[in-house]
Amino acid sequence: MVKVRAHSNIALVKYWGKRHIPLNIPAVGSISITLDALYTDTAVVFDPSLTEDRLVLNGIPAKEKESRRVSAFLDRVRKMAGRDDFARIESVNNFPTAAGLASSASAFAALALAATRAAGLTLSPPELSVLARIGSGSAARSLFGGFVQMHRGERDDGRDAYAEPLYKGDYWPLRVIIAVTAEGPKKTGSTDGMEHSRLTSPYYEAWVSDSQKDIDAMREALKNKDFERLADISEYSCLKMHALAMSGRPGLIYWNDRTLELLHWVRARRAEGWPVFFTIDAGPQLKVICPEDYGERVGALLREHPAVERIIESSLGNDARVMDE
Amino acid sequence: MVKVRAHSNIALVKYWGKRHIPLNIPAVGSISITLDALYTDTAVVFDPSLTEDRLVLNGIPAKEKESRRVSAFLDRVRKMAGRDDFARIESVNNFPTAAGLASSASAFAALALAATRAAGLTLSPPELSVLARIGSGSAARSLFGGFVQMHRGERDDGRDAYAEPLYKGDYWPLRVIIAVTAEGPKKTGSTDGMEHSRLTSPYYEAWVSDSQKDIDAMREALKNKDFERLADISEYSCLKMHALAMSGRPGLIYWNDRTLELLHWVRARRAEGWPVFFTIDAGPQLKVICPEDYGERVGALLREHPAVERIIESSLGNDARVMDE
Repeated sequence: MVKVRAHSNIALVKYWGKRHIPLNIPAVGSISITLDALYTDTAVVFDPSLTEDRLVLNGIPAKEKESRRVSAFLDRVRKMAGRDDFARIESVNNFPTAAGLASSASAFAALALAATRAAGLTLSPPELSVLARIGSGSAARSLFGGFVQMHRGERDDGRDAYAEPLYKGDYWPLRVIIAVTAEGPKKTGSTDGMEHSRLTSPYYEAWVSDSQKDIDAMREALKNKDFERLADISEYSCLKMHALAMSGRPGLIYWNDRTLELLHWVRARRAEGWPVFFTIDAGPQLKVICPEDYGERVGALLREHPAVERIIESSLGNDARVMDE
Repeated sequence: MVKVRAHSNIALVKYWGKRHIPLNIPAVGSISITLDALYTDTAVVFDPSLTEDRLVLNGIPAKEKESRRVSAFLDRVRKMAGRDDFARIESVNNFPTAAGLASSASAFAALALAATRAAGLTLSPPELSVLARIGSGSAARSLFGGFVQMHRGERDDGRDAYAEPLYKGDYWPLRVIIAVTAEGPKKTGSTDGMEHSRLTSPYYEAWVSDSQKDIDAMREALKNKDFERLADISEYSCLKMHALAMSGRPGLIYWNDRTLELLHWVRARRAEGWPVFFTIDAGPQLKVICPEDYGERVGALLREHPAVERIIESSLGNDARVMDE
């Protein structure tokens, strides 16, 4: 039995759009931060006595759709390891699933590491990242802690589309405060939303061709620990991604009224000189980022804000790692 | 003394971006509807005894900035008419100014017609429309009632960038319900916002090159009185325009939380089968459009909606016209 912990992550330079759907190859690169407070623990053991894979999620036998997705992923691992036995998989998120918070990133990062180790494979970090990516695009980044860059890659087989760690979390301690504005799953998932944008938005090509500039600028901002640049690039990339989704036909709007109220709140604080900025994924929750030593003040204000259902606070997290073997 | 009434208008296929700022030549064409309930009454008389233009707005002598803008406009009229005397101008809006509702459209349409008539000029409708456009881009459309198309034009002097009436209001009776969500002027005016988008958004070129398709599709929808198409194209053009503004650097967000709450409300009604759609200009007010015979039900619901400050209701209006001479 191999038990692995992998953390969730949030892209600051956003990923939106795939250049190959079955292999989850992204059309653009991205840069993310890994969240200490949100993680998945996954245990995998291959068992020759089984006649099929057995998946237990948060203590409950998984539904057919989830089981099939995981078994398809394990088929890849089996093929790489040259074996054909089935596995028991137990996976627990320490944060609510179906709460509009990305959970497939930490889940497939944990599964990729646990399953390959349990199958007797030792993959290089890029190989492991490519594998996790096939499970879920953002999972490729969750293998690494701190600040992570996902490469778009150029190859058709996706082997150069992997994530690479840039800096550890303690290089530049940041605080992330997730303002939950609405519970419950979103109407349009990321994969469907991305494809809708690619097929229907007149802005899609410009989104793709403009993205490398943001990656380069973000790398520079990280190198110089330039918070203003970090904030500018992150908000720009976030709004550009949501603008892309919004310009499809019909336009996808992932925000609710509270998301927008909080966005304006963060902008107002930033205009007053606070080192704080927002980012939003394909859902209604607003993530507020500030230096670690501002976290308490910002968290306290957001906790009391009438547009906030509840908050989840996090520092930057570590690499995915084996907890038990 | 010549007294003219001109109505406000709302673009359904949106205008955003100028290809020449001093002459207000639009980068894209647009299609609008003229609003019966919102209008400007403007009286102009040239008076050789005056030593400067005298502008009275809503009963109060105008501020310097407004006076200068109107005098610059009158200089054009004087030049066309070959005269050099000054004028008294009295202008009254029947709707609150500085309420986030476009008022320059009806104002400059009324001024263009009143001032040229008072100066003894008789311009053709396209010539008059070009003149009004120089005062304010959307004023070119307010000279005409019902459904109006603004041509982008190709010439450098802007002489082919004028508005043209497509259908009278009674051709297809629609109801417009303006849901006022916030009073007070917006932070970034349209002219500044347009230029910001042109200079900073990676989506600007795609916005411009994609626009003719919307014009063509809207003309077809109007010809066939196809409400679903009218709704689709209008919402698409609106969201695409706001997405463009949002993708600038920094992104311009003209919506507040209530705008978005009402947008989702309209989408939910439409998903239930109601013939209703939204459009939003460069401000936080949401405009809801439906067939005239649905107006009462939609208006009643919006009047009671907690996100609505107040509503303004309108049918489609007529051409700008001389009321008194």
